[in-house]
Amino acid sequence: MKKNIIAGQSGGPTAVINASLYGVIEEGLSRAGEVGTIYGMINGIEGFLSGHFMDLSAALSPEDRELLKHTPGAYLGSCRHKLPQNMDSPVYPLLFEKLASMDIGALFYIGGNDSMDTVEKLSRYGELCHSSISFIGVPKTIDNDLPVTDHTPGYGSAAKYVASTVREIVLDASVYQQPSITLVELMGRHAGWVTAASVLARKFPEDNPRLIYLPESPFSVEQLFADVERALAQTPSLVICVSEGIKDSSGRFICEYASEAQTDTFGHKMLTGCAKILEGYLKNRFGVKVRSVELNVNQRCSGLISSLCDIEEAAEAGRFAVKSALEGASGQMVTLNRLPGPDYHMVPGLTDAAAVCNKEKTFPSEWITPDGCGIRPEFISYALPLIQGEPPRRTKDGLPCYLYRNV
Amino acid sequence: MKKNIIAGQSGGPTAVINASLYGVIEEGLSRAGEVGTIYGMINGIEGFLSGHFMDLSAALSPEDRELLKHTPGAYLGSCRHKLPQNMDSPVYPLLFEKLASMDIGALFYIGGNDSMDTVEKLSRYGELCHSSISFIGVPKTIDNDLPVTDHTPGYGSAAKYVASTVREIVLDASVYQQPSITLVELMGRHAGWVTAASVLARKFPEDNPRLIYLPESPFSVEQLFADVERALAQTPSLVICVSEGIKDSSGRFICEYASEAQTDTFGHKMLTGCAKILEGYLKNRFGVKVRSVELNVNQRCSGLISSLCDIEEAAEAGRFAVKSALEGASGQMVTLNRLPGPDYHMVPGLTDAAAVCNKEKTFPSEWITPDGCGIRPEFISYALPLIQGEPPRRTKDGLPCYLYRNV
Repeated sequence: MKKNIIAGQSGGPTAVINASLYGVIEEGLSRAGEVGTIYGMINGIEGFLSGHFMDLSAALSPEDRELLKHTPGAYLGSCRHKLPQNMDSPVYPLLFEKLASMDIGALFYIGGNDSMDTVEKLSRYGELCHSSISFIGVPKTIDNDLPVTDHTPGYGSAAKYVASTVREIVLDASVYQQPSITLVELMGRHAGWVTAASVLARKFPEDNPRLIYLPESPFSVEQLFADVERALAQTPSLVICVSEGIKDSSGRFICEYASEAQTDTFGHKMLTGCAKILEGYLKNRFGVKVRSVELNVNQRCSGLISSLCDIEEAAEAGRFAVKSALEGASGQMVTLNRLPGPDYHMVPGLTDAAAVCNKEKTFPSEWITPDGCGIRPEFISYALPLIQGEPPRRTKDGLPCYLYRNV
Repeated sequence: MKKNIIAGQSGGPTAVINASLYGVIEEGLSRAGEVGTIYGMINGIEGFLSGHFMDLSAALSPEDRELLKHTPGAYLGSCRHKLPQNMDSPVYPLLFEKLASMDIGALFYIGGNDSMDTVEKLSRYGELCHSSISFIGVPKTIDNDLPVTDHTPGYGSAAKYVASTVREIVLDASVYQQPSITLVELMGRHAGWVTAASVLARKFPEDNPRLIYLPESPFSVEQLFADVERALAQTPSLVICVSEGIKDSSGRFICEYASEAQTDTFGHKMLTGCAKILEGYLKNRFGVKVRSVELNVNQRCSGLISSLCDIEEAAEAGRFAVKSALEGASGQMVTLNRLPGPDYHMVPGLTDAAAVCNKEKTFPSEWITPDGCGIRPEFISYALPLIQGEPPRRTKDGLPCYLYRNV
């Protein structure tokens, strides 16, 4: 019996969350005998609860869909909204009535750990009320911190952006004769995957960035001083990469080392990144030029330096979600599984959303060098396939051309 | 009579300073009857004074030279070194003896205001000692602040990077329903050219970035509050671009507004960007999510988002410098001159280095809207041709492929 489907996006934007939406739409359209209208929630489950959704099958031309595949950000808008733990909450019957009134047969939620929590709760409530709706999660996060899956769509593009951009920072940092230190702060509050990708910027093993610090290793300023002293002797233009979430052995974040007196003129405490803090320490200790660079939001959603491999896998994850729903799966998240062997091959699979939600996969400690400031070659072998391929570049008037919902 | 030539790079790196070097080399090679060896100073005049130079004609294959054209940074290394004002300084005879011993007929110095000071002094000393060596400056600065020339090589690529990247930050900022403010801090301590380029990120006139502040307009926090209040009413996801060098009507930099108490744990004053300062002010005033992004070094030397127009013009400036020297010019800087008419045409010319050195061309006040927070369409017409064209993208293992001197 032909049913409609609906997709939503949730959590932080990435370079490929729209490629997964594209995959859902394409597979839905190709299954015209089983799938009717393809809806999109505006601003995820939060917006949907307020009645915001759109008819994607009607709104998007084939050209639009192709553009959507290569548009970073979250075309449908996103949210950070957790459904209540209590299944007796009135939210659930409200939601299921809405879905029933729209004749929805399957709901696809593209997001990270928190979004899988939504998938798990919806499918649990669905079982309680004997609903036939399928709930399938499509993984998405630059943090690469979802368990079970080999990696997550979004990570490959973030890794490529970080490696490419750090390589250019290294070029910029090396033009003068005078010794200098450049600190680059990268995303990753709890997991070091994004920061670890900076190792790919090296052209040879002893190249910059010479020192890389992840949240998974306890950080010590004294150890940093020793590492920098050693590295500066060999590389006068030193580049260091740090995760925003590095912390000391007591678990205190380095970004919290800012003096309590650090306030703006209104007396409000100012939040400072760890690289900014370390910049001051290193200036004081070594008396050389030190600067810090925070890559910030572009590392998570740049369409200018994204990975074609990542885009294609994200689209495939969206397609596989629809296929799985039509085969009756529910309460599951799509996984990416790497086949053994010398060449890179990925096949999609499924896992229980409950096995993923609210869990974190941190960077493996065995891939950090024993001195705590380097990344082992095993990671390079793992990550290199994920950053391959250049997506077609669409420009107009010299600027990137993307698909916008509101323009 | 056949003579050797030498080129140097000076000041901050850009995306196209190597394209100008490529132009010098290509033109030199094509004039084999007049030009012998093509040397490069390592780390500009400072390195040359210490005896550091290389034979570019021997070192670079045709493939290397093609790669050099598209490599950001400064292949030869750079310096920030001012020659003494006093022509009696022993530096001058030392330098001229070196040049004579290498049988140099022309010296090309690729750089900004300070580098043109070097060209002017060398040619002045050359006249004093009746040297036949030509000294020609090739303009380079992302700041676009050199007088006489319509624009400077390096600016087009920086403008393109800024416009493209801000467009993606706008995408990222607009995914949630909740109102938010994103501040983007761009380069430009004294001139607003780079920050003004953020207006190119707009897809329609009322689009983000809605508010743009340059150092050429006195900045007031009270006025910012009024502007933001008005803008937030229309655009809940507000993006604001500011130059690092915005200052108030008394001439005090906003980045100096940080409380004196703002120190690191060693008691050292911490330098903070103006966007970080304003982030605190806006959070306090509007109670919405506010974040700040400092684009930092990548805006000046990214080969990933550079302008083909800029690269070709930079190369042409290098070629024209060699042609001019061979015709007997000295003490001159190459200029880019825009021909009148509806289509963009640029022809190179020459101006006295003395007319350029130590002078600054700020952003025209008539191109700033009367409210002080916008850029007029005249600038868009001026800047759009400069960001056109996508250079070929050379990658290896998914990462940009550049030419390195030391690898």
